[in-house]
Amino acid sequence: MSGSSSGLSSIESMGEGQGLPVATNPVALAQALIRQPSVCPDPGPAQHLLGAVLEQLGFTVWHLPYGEGAERTPNFFARRGHTGPHICFAGHTDVVPPGNEALWAHPPFAAHITEGVLYGRGACDMKGGIAAFVAAVARLIAQTELLAGSISFLITGDEEGPATYGTQKVLEWMAQEGQIPDYCVVGEPTNPAAMGDMVKIGRRGSLNAHIVVEGVQGHVAYPHRADNPVHRLLNILAALQAQPLDNGSDYFEPSSLQVTSVDVGNGATNVIPASAQARLNIRFNDLHTGAALSGWVQTICSQHAPKAKVDIKISGESFLTAPGPETTALVQAIEKITGRNPKLDTGGGTSDARFIANYCPVSEFGLVGASIHKVDEHTDVADLETLTQIYQTFLEGVLA
Amino acid sequence: MSGSSSGLSSIESMGEGQGLPVATNPVALAQALIRQPSVCPDPGPAQHLLGAVLEQLGFTVWHLPYGEGAERTPNFFARRGHTGPHICFAGHTDVVPPGNEALWAHPPFAAHITEGVLYGRGACDMKGGIAAFVAAVARLIAQTELLAGSISFLITGDEEGPATYGTQKVLEWMAQEGQIPDYCVVGEPTNPAAMGDMVKIGRRGSLNAHIVVEGVQGHVAYPHRADNPVHRLLNILAALQAQPLDNGSDYFEPSSLQVTSVDVGNGATNVIPASAQARLNIRFNDLHTGAALSGWVQTICSQHAPKAKVDIKISGESFLTAPGPETTALVQAIEKITGRNPKLDTGGGTSDARFIANYCPVSEFGLVGASIHKVDEHTDVADLETLTQIYQTFLEGVLA
Repeated sequence: MSGSSSGLSSIESMGEGQGLPVATNPVALAQALIRQPSVCPDPGPAQHLLGAVLEQLGFTVWHLPYGEGAERTPNFFARRGHTGPHICFAGHTDVVPPGNEALWAHPPFAAHITEGVLYGRGACDMKGGIAAFVAAVARLIAQTELLAGSISFLITGDEEGPATYGTQKVLEWMAQEGQIPDYCVVGEPTNPAAMGDMVKIGRRGSLNAHIVVEGVQGHVAYPHRADNPVHRLLNILAALQAQPLDNGSDYFEPSSLQVTSVDVGNGATNVIPASAQARLNIRFNDLHTGAALSGWVQTICSQHAPKAKVDIKISGESFLTAPGPETTALVQAIEKITGRNPKLDTGGGTSDARFIANYCPVSEFGLVGASIHKVDEHTDVADLETLTQIYQTFLEGVLA
Repeated sequence: MSGSSSGLSSIESMGEGQGLPVATNPVALAQALIRQPSVCPDPGPAQHLLGAVLEQLGFTVWHLPYGEGAERTPNFFARRGHTGPHICFAGHTDVVPPGNEALWAHPPFAAHITEGVLYGRGACDMKGGIAAFVAAVARLIAQTELLAGSISFLITGDEEGPATYGTQKVLEWMAQEGQIPDYCVVGEPTNPAAMGDMVKIGRRGSLNAHIVVEGVQGHVAYPHRADNPVHRLLNILAALQAQPLDNGSDYFEPSSLQVTSVDVGNGATNVIPASAQARLNIRFNDLHTGAALSGWVQTICSQHAPKAKVDIKISGESFLTAPGPETTALVQAIEKITGRNPKLDTGGGTSDARFIANYCPVSEFGLVGASIHKVDEHTDVADLETLTQIYQTFLEGVLA
């Protein structure tokens, strides 16, 4: 097929001509993205650079900013192809702040490469991951311009912040426009230590509770005339922790309840205080729902302190993409390129995958995340190439 | 006996001649004492007035000030008679501050009597109690100048404050001088609601503990990488409260453990904090010692948090004066004058009786305490007369 080499050379020449990085080179693309500082929410240029590269690769790009003023968030959806299967890559161009830049051995937005390591804020979380997927697509197009199915990008500029005007809004737009994919890969850095460690196929849900118990103040010498709210609160917390929430499920670790604060603020040793409060977080697996856990917490509170004020916020339900053909293809690609069998995991903190799971099957795989959110965030240059090959192999598998 | 009436008249004339109140009249004497403001520590005049009245009654007064500067505390020991049995009355001339005097319907140091009620700071805690005992002694002397045995007064000017330079120091002096009595009555207002309610024959001990648990900070999503000090602290507090300390003893209510504060101060809902602390107080009966309870608290802390820092202060051991002939005489006097059978109690807060108990049997009986430490502290005038008659009847019983 003559389209193969001509496609590659045309992309390369177009990129050079407009000052764009070479799309098949994940390292150059990652460097170009890092050099556009985009502390959350992304002010725009990093994302527009990415959109321009995708347009050069034949993608149609819909820029979808949401929010006003300081909350204004750039986002885009880009798609190449009109038929199924439709595989989407989701990611974010915003990064967490560098903190005190004087603590960085390598300037956070310089994208220096030293001894095979690329340094910079976003190197692995997740401009590097984006660059690898773009390079995988570019190489695939260079091989065979007439790809089966569709490839799309769901890119937000606010994943590290409130995420109110990012992925959720774009998904709503995609649903309205009939652009929901058959499968989505989020390029978050899922590997704890080395490429091939871990694919995430779900996440635990998260619930925060704030419990305030009012009692009756009094002298410690006359406890029968008082009503010690500390004791009521301690009984609540003991009851909440009396038994494990569960013993885990097929793809989930056991749910976890952590009391994060208890506060009374009573400095008088001879006084029973008037009120006491506690905060706790529950990370829960697919054996629970946020609503059921809320009811359970409320019930226990009312049993031990009928007048307790309980404020509960569910920041995310648990979700799971049970392994199907796409996830299998991703695992096989990882095994082929790295020789390692990744763990299918559901642990850790949240990502935008929790929003995507409401619309389609989703998994997460990217670079090594050990240095994320730290000074001198970095990725091995070799890992960028490995990830590019994994993504390309995966796409070849699911679009064949 | 001619001595009877001549004794009374000579005391009355002496009192009048020097501007002193009539010693047989507890109301006039209480008023005179209230009108000498003596917010803790007593600056002196109230106590010197009292000493002068006792000298008129034939007492030898040893003024025993201790402490320097702002801590200087006036105290005295006064005794009439040289033989046994030696009965001592212990009390304090200092009072707690009146607070905002504008809130008082009756000025706190005016000693107004309205509709049979005497108002003023110290009216029942405990200038009224002192006045009643002095009046009881004065009436007894008026009846029979040659009393058997000895009567003494242990008066401090700092019972409401740190009490460092008060009763304890006077007791040391008394021990050195061979002045320890056979029995002591403390005139604190022991009756909750009405004269004859309650005699105190002991008190619970008190222990304060401050527990600090250090853990390892971390993200709530990865509790296995952290060590939640809140959970360790909650386990400690649950273990300390798992079982009652006891079920009470012959003269004591069950001991009581009150957690008075728990403090973490962690506002981040997704963070397991680095440390947590708690404060607790134990009021313990004669089945425990402060040392044994300290060891128990320390052991439980070390079981659940080996590195916990535990700071324990024992502010008083429990004590008990098991009922003997003097307490029986006091109860009989109360029954005779009030027609009521007082409860022999060991509850409530501390008094200087805890110091006296180290030297001799001690009980406490005085006025009705419902208004102590409040605005418009007051006592019924009739109660002052009742208490005077009880004390006199008691003295007749034990000195017969």
